[in-house]
Amino acid sequence: MFQDVSQTESPSDLPAFLQKRQKLTLDYNRSCRLDTGNPQSVLHVVGTALKAKLNRSAPPSSKFFSVKCTSNVRYIISPPPQETSHLSPIPLSENSVLLISMNYASQYENDAKLSVRYYGENNDVLGRAVLHLTAVEISLDVDADRDGRVERNNPNKVSWKWGPDGHGAILLVNCDSEKIFKKKPDHEKDYVSTVSDLKDMSVMVLRTKGPTKLPEGYKLTMHISQGDAESVRVFRSRSSNVVNNSLEKLFQRFVKDYPLVLSSEVLSQEVPYVGGEAEMNLYVEGLRFPDKDFDGLLTINLSLLEPICAGLPETPIFTDKVVFRVAPWIMTPNTLQPVEVFVCSTSDNYQFLKGMKNLVAKSGYKLKICHEYLNRGDRWMQDELEFGYIDSPHHRFPVVLDSPRDGKLQDFPYDELLGPDFGYVTRVAQEKDVSSLDSFGNLEVSPPVTVNGKKYPLGRIIIGVAFPTATKGRNMTKVVQDFLWAQKVQEPIALFSDWLLVGHVDEFMTFVPAPDRKGFRLLLASPDAGYKLFRGLQYDGHGQAQLFEGLRDEKPMTVDEILNDESLKAENNYVQSCIDWNRDVLKRELGLDDDDIIDLPILFKLEEEKNKQYRAVAYYPDMVNMIVLGKNLGIPKPFGPKVNGRCALEAEMCSLMGGLGLSCTFIDDFASYHKLLGEVHCGSNVRREPFDFQWWNLQM
Amino acid sequence: MFQDVSQTESPSDLPAFLQKRQKLTLDYNRSCRLDTGNPQSVLHVVGTALKAKLNRSAPPSSKFFSVKCTSNVRYIISPPPQETSHLSPIPLSENSVLLISMNYASQYENDAKLSVRYYGENNDVLGRAVLHLTAVEISLDVDADRDGRVERNNPNKVSWKWGPDGHGAILLVNCDSEKIFKKKPDHEKDYVSTVSDLKDMSVMVLRTKGPTKLPEGYKLTMHISQGDAESVRVFRSRSSNVVNNSLEKLFQRFVKDYPLVLSSEVLSQEVPYVGGEAEMNLYVEGLRFPDKDFDGLLTINLSLLEPICAGLPETPIFTDKVVFRVAPWIMTPNTLQPVEVFVCSTSDNYQFLKGMKNLVAKSGYKLKICHEYLNRGDRWMQDELEFGYIDSPHHRFPVVLDSPRDGKLQDFPYDELLGPDFGYVTRVAQEKDVSSLDSFGNLEVSPPVTVNGKKYPLGRIIIGVAFPTATKGRNMTKVVQDFLWAQKVQEPIALFSDWLLVGHVDEFMTFVPAPDRKGFRLLLASPDAGYKLFRGLQYDGHGQAQLFEGLRDEKPMTVDEILNDESLKAENNYVQSCIDWNRDVLKRELGLDDDDIIDLPILFKLEEEKNKQYRAVAYYPDMVNMIVLGKNLGIPKPFGPKVNGRCALEAEMCSLMGGLGLSCTFIDDFASYHKLLGEVHCGSNVRREPFDFQWWNLQM
Repeated sequence: MFQDVSQTESPSDLPAFLQKRQKLTLDYNRSCRLDTGNPQSVLHVVGTALKAKLNRSAPPSSKFFSVKCTSNVRYIISPPPQETSHLSPIPLSENSVLLISMNYASQYENDAKLSVRYYGENNDVLGRAVLHLTAVEISLDVDADRDGRVERNNPNKVSWKWGPDGHGAILLVNCDSEKIFKKKPDHEKDYVSTVSDLKDMSVMVLRTKGPTKLPEGYKLTMHISQGDAESVRVFRSRSSNVVNNSLEKLFQRFVKDYPLVLSSEVLSQEVPYVGGEAEMNLYVEGLRFPDKDFDGLLTINLSLLEPICAGLPETPIFTDKVVFRVAPWIMTPNTLQPVEVFVCSTSDNYQFLKGMKNLVAKSGYKLKICHEYLNRGDRWMQDELEFGYIDSPHHRFPVVLDSPRDGKLQDFPYDELLGPDFGYVTRVAQEKDVSSLDSFGNLEVSPPVTVNGKKYPLGRIIIGVAFPTATKGRNMTKVVQDFLWAQKVQEPIALFSDWLLVGHVDEFMTFVPAPDRKGFRLLLASPDAGYKLFRGLQYDGHGQAQLFEGLRDEKPMTVDEILNDESLKAENNYVQSCIDWNRDVLKRELGLDDDDIIDLPILFKLEEEKNKQYRAVAYYPDMVNMIVLGKNLGIPKPFGPKVNGRCALEAEMCSLMGGLGLSCTFIDDFASYHKLLGEVHCGSNVRREPFDFQWWNLQM
Repeated sequence: MFQDVSQTESPSDLPAFLQKRQKLTLDYNRSCRLDTGNPQSVLHVVGTALKAKLNRSAPPSSKFFSVKCTSNVRYIISPPPQETSHLSPIPLSENSVLLISMNYASQYENDAKLSVRYYGENNDVLGRAVLHLTAVEISLDVDADRDGRVERNNPNKVSWKWGPDGHGAILLVNCDSEKIFKKKPDHEKDYVSTVSDLKDMSVMVLRTKGPTKLPEGYKLTMHISQGDAESVRVFRSRSSNVVNNSLEKLFQRFVKDYPLVLSSEVLSQEVPYVGGEAEMNLYVEGLRFPDKDFDGLLTINLSLLEPICAGLPETPIFTDKVVFRVAPWIMTPNTLQPVEVFVCSTSDNYQFLKGMKNLVAKSGYKLKICHEYLNRGDRWMQDELEFGYIDSPHHRFPVVLDSPRDGKLQDFPYDELLGPDFGYVTRVAQEKDVSSLDSFGNLEVSPPVTVNGKKYPLGRIIIGVAFPTATKGRNMTKVVQDFLWAQKVQEPIALFSDWLLVGHVDEFMTFVPAPDRKGFRLLLASPDAGYKLFRGLQYDGHGQAQLFEGLRDEKPMTVDEILNDESLKAENNYVQSCIDWNRDVLKRELGLDDDDIIDLPILFKLEEEKNKQYRAVAYYPDMVNMIVLGKNLGIPKPFGPKVNGRCALEAEMCSLMGGLGLSCTFIDDFASYHKLLGEVHCGSNVRREPFDFQWWNLQM
């Protein structure tokens, strides 16, 4: 559309960086006024163009014009003049436009000049507009290509796209604590607590090139919107650095060297222009996770402001922008490699602890015991917290989600887990809204799945709720549900768990690794499978074999007694229908076939609650409530009927799991967990390795 | 995957409706338990399948099975048995599955039967499981294809997609008032106020077919989530109707015939099953517009619940869902056909009113005058409200957005505009957050544009704000901005208007229709164009021509005096740079060329405010602040310098607009508006015809 008639070098002479910028030129036109009265000084940003409507300030009765400039200025006239000689005056039309640009930063103020002469009918000079130009290079840079390094002026830095061919920078919520004593999550402090804190932030580089200082009154300002300020803070290094100063050197500085630039208190602040060729490191800190009212995207702006006069606000003449997305909190399914196993020690769980120690030692992982002075008798390590992590190209660390359950273990996640490179997040619910369904035994995650062609390489979160049809019923509290849905990368599935007295999905389901098919099996508690097994025992002449044999304070029951209990059968029919409903949902939402599911022989019974409502509890230790450590399973010892000296339920479990190459360890949790309505899984927690898959590579 | 071995008719015999359902079968499998103890009664929903794992309830040592059923039952066995004769027993394997379905609704309870026999090694019968089946057809239907009629069981009814090839039902916010006295928006009442109110709601039809009543204990329940309940309410007609009852007949019923089914108080409620072939009309009412925390999508569920026993919640055995999107509020640009023009009558605006009456009469539209007892001296009709509309395939009506400005006109939108088929919406801001930028002279909308290939067939909203870089400054209040952005279909653009004392975008820009190019021109106030015109006058010997001639209390100014005022020139340079910044934004965001923009000769001057800040006001009546009525423009009479008896500013305007086929009428608003810092546009408002383009056809 524009023809270049200037005398300077052709675009192919330009360095690649500037050629890329050149393409942007038409997008970054800035209207520029010519003034035939006084010469004007204009600051120009390399990579943009100044656009002057020539007729706008032409003296009356102007008919022609001519343009002259120093060799460091380029210009284009539109519509292109017919004569190619730039010396003879060009006819002035209503829509004559002059497009002015410079390809290199100035070394000195006003080291470039352009003038326009206006002529009358007879080539008599009617006026002359003079522009003195100073050029600067400015770019605010981030790691938009997600390789862990801040590249120079990525053309995609201003938008965010998912996927392996996507782009856009990533921000972590700075939710760990560099301090170990008097700690709190770092983002609760509006200063850099230690220099090591900088590695939890995203580096942003302000690159400038130009004369020693900006012309009088011009300044650089960074700014964010009020909405974004709730979620982000920006620090800078106090002094800019000549190029090639290493990151290591920066990290040796002191905390006071990193003043706060932007926050919810200061939405806009001047940043220094250093002069020459300079780079200033800025550090961007995420303050909150995506949530119902926050999609995770943040924009940080840098503007070059032009002075007008005292009392008038400066006008921005150039704005550069970068976009970040806050990394979501990600859960880790049973199929990921364990790192640490957490259990509580209580006055009465010696037997359980012994079993767990052996299992964890055998599996080769670390066992961490929360002692009684800390747990105060609350043994439900699964329920108080969920381990997850956050990930970015430059850094990654585990983050514990603290449940609003808040039993006597409530201080454990904050006091014991939060620390350097171990983050903490919670959601505060109104006390009246918190129910048993808010315990994180009711929060699980599937292994990676593909559902009708849609890939979930990080799996899907699974929670338990009341039936949507229920006029009353318990639910996971809304603030936690909103948080989980807002993370987006492990789209949740809501199951029906309110039929259980405790109400947790881990009472009827888990996932174990498998060498074939989808890489895992879904294990479901199944009263039908239980009845089938017991009927088989009866048929084979073991009707008098006893459950609960040798347990103190527990009346043994024979297989015949169980099979003859019509009420128990009816209760289990109900339980099976509830689990089947969930089975159908899981098949649909995880894209599973029947062959991906294994039914475990587990019976339930119904207990009457105060409100005359009946809800289910496990009849014998609920084997599906297991801990999964690689190929080793820690399973509640079921105390089932013995056949030839071997528990028939254990034998069945070993047979089913053995086919997948998994090894079963049965842990006696009867008195200290089962009788308190929980099992091995409820009483433990596992921190696992993160996914190899990087969440930003998801196709959304 | 499944081979059909049943004896019933082939799929091609099925009615089209059922064939479509048949495809869904695999998605709607429900796990079903076989019981060799007691015969079971099962309710089956046509279009789904019951899936029984045959081995799960097989008696011990079962090796074979056979299936028998009545002719109205279809079944499929998987894996397919090798023998095609269904009489000889089939080998039972671990993964044998029976898929059961019925193609037609039952006439009587349990009018179908299926039995499975299990055999031992020697074909000895070990057990028999019997299912008594009753089939019903159920579908919850909406207008998912957007043709204004509720079709039957649209397979896309459960999702929402934009565009001409999109789908998904649409809901209006019931924000008009059927009542004229003691009125309030209908959605604030949780009952159907008059039967005519139903037309503001979306019809949803519950279609059922089956025996006279459902088997004992089964029931139909509708439900919504707690989150959705803030935004939607559902009523039903008290009695179902035999098919083909006309909508007219329904509308003749009484209000008490429409009980409330779902609301924020009642998230789940039983709806009657009528028996035979029946349709029940339900009426869905939107309660709130899309906003920051509400994307506009709503799901309504219908479940068929199976009884278990007293004290236990029923289990849903089938759920049908429909999705609605709440229609956004849409603004109407100057290029749309006017319907009504609103102005205020005050004690001092006789001259203005006379001009407006003539203009509106000439243009052939309706003039509505808000009299003094109502406006209490507040003449800024533009600022108190913005006209828009909401649209759906079944109904459409205008909706006024009431500004949080709340001058003395504040009751006008509610008291005078709200009514039958005239909706009302507002956003309540904290008083301290409200500034002059919240007046709706600061809220405009562009004509349809295409920007870098992206189409905005409904144009883009334009608002004015402070510069993002400003450390202090006025802004449009957040609740209104959030509302505007959430409507999505006219993606807003934020301009810089805080440099103006009043701070409204209509002080420097407007759009007029044009016969060529993009169908419109953007008009911008331009001090440079003003100076150019005045310099031309001076050059032509009219330096002594006077502005403000003949105006009482206004000192006339000559062209020479204006051109010699260096301070005024500097102030206008600043104003031009502010407008140029906006010009650059508008070009980029609306995809405009310079030729799409016309600069109008308008000068400004700066006024010092209490806080020593300077902001701009128009030097003479601000011609860009005009009213656009088709091809007739009502323009503030500028009182410019006269040349040969004709105002040079008027002549220039007529010349510029005449080229577009537009006719200029200059209205004297000097004393009654201009001196109070507003003009014709600020003092008027136009309700316009909606777009022909339907918002749901947008490509998002």
